[in-house]
Amino acid sequence: MDPALRKQVLRMISYGLYVVTARHESRIAAATVDWVTQASFEPPMVVCCLRQDSLIYELVRAAGRFAVHPLGENQKSFAAHFFKNKSATETEINGQPCTIADSGVPILSGAPAYFVLETVGQLTQSDHAVVLGRVIGVGLNTNPPPPPLLMRDTGWHYGG
Amino acid sequence: MDPALRKQVLRMISYGLYVVTARHESRIAAATVDWVTQASFEPPMVVCCLRQDSLIYELVRAAGRFAVHPLGENQKSFAAHFFKNKSATETEINGQPCTIADSGVPILSGAPAYFVLETVGQLTQSDHAVVLGRVIGVGLNTNPPPPPLLMRDTGWHYGG
Repeated sequence: MDPALRKQVLRMISYGLYVVTARHESRIAAATVDWVTQASFEPPMVVCCLRQDSLIYELVRAAGRFAVHPLGENQKSFAAHFFKNKSATETEINGQPCTIADSGVPILSGAPAYFVLETVGQLTQSDHAVVLGRVIGVGLNTNPPPPPLLMRDTGWHYGG
Repeated sequence: MDPALRKQVLRMISYGLYVVTARHESRIAAATVDWVTQASFEPPMVVCCLRQDSLIYELVRAAGRFAVHPLGENQKSFAAHFFKNKSATETEINGQPCTIADSGVPILSGAPAYFVLETVGQLTQSDHAVVLGRVIGVGLNTNPPPPPLLMRDTGWHYGG
């Protein structure tokens, strides 16, 4: 397989942008991701693919639950806050305000919406873990929420 | 969880549109799907979620390999050809021309691009199977390919 052709074809898959958050005991992390898709209607489930060598995956695996925040069309700079782990407490992650939900997961106040997932299955045979989570909570911080931010509108790529 | 709120939040996940094809012995099928994401760089893998009660899933499961065709921005009507199983042979599926690749999977000539997946793992605890496939082939029918068709540009929804 020609790597350039493979990249060109795989980059025809379309994505939004999301910030994943998780907490295990006193450790908190967030990460910007795009490899997210719904995976079931009944019960509602979502798949999220996370780099196996990442802090966010370590906390998702340890906690068994996590939040996914879809971003709004004007939140490219918000997304960029979560490329690297800088600081994280129960009130802010990388300088962005958060709260701890009843479910124990951090919710970013600056994201328009979020859903909370409880892990029900994983596939771990490659560089990312395919994490299948059941939706156990949802919420809006902005009502109505803005149109979603698309990966292709950012000029960034993660895929190929 | 309020079902209307849940639908509103889950519909903030962004999708493209894809036609999945598979063949097992003399049986061939195709289906339009949106729940697709890359899942690994090294080796390259993709996740595709398929209704467990569908013919396409029956053939994907039996064959262990399948093709995914990302669609171009003007292919909404092409996508609509694969909502239901009508006719399928080694040269046409639902009236749309196809060929059988060396890998044994049907390739739709009318799609701008495709990748061929070999199943390496599945999660089946809900109404859709989460099928993880390793990319074993890619190809372009249109070079350069058009910008991808987005689910949100079709007015259709599958998710929520």
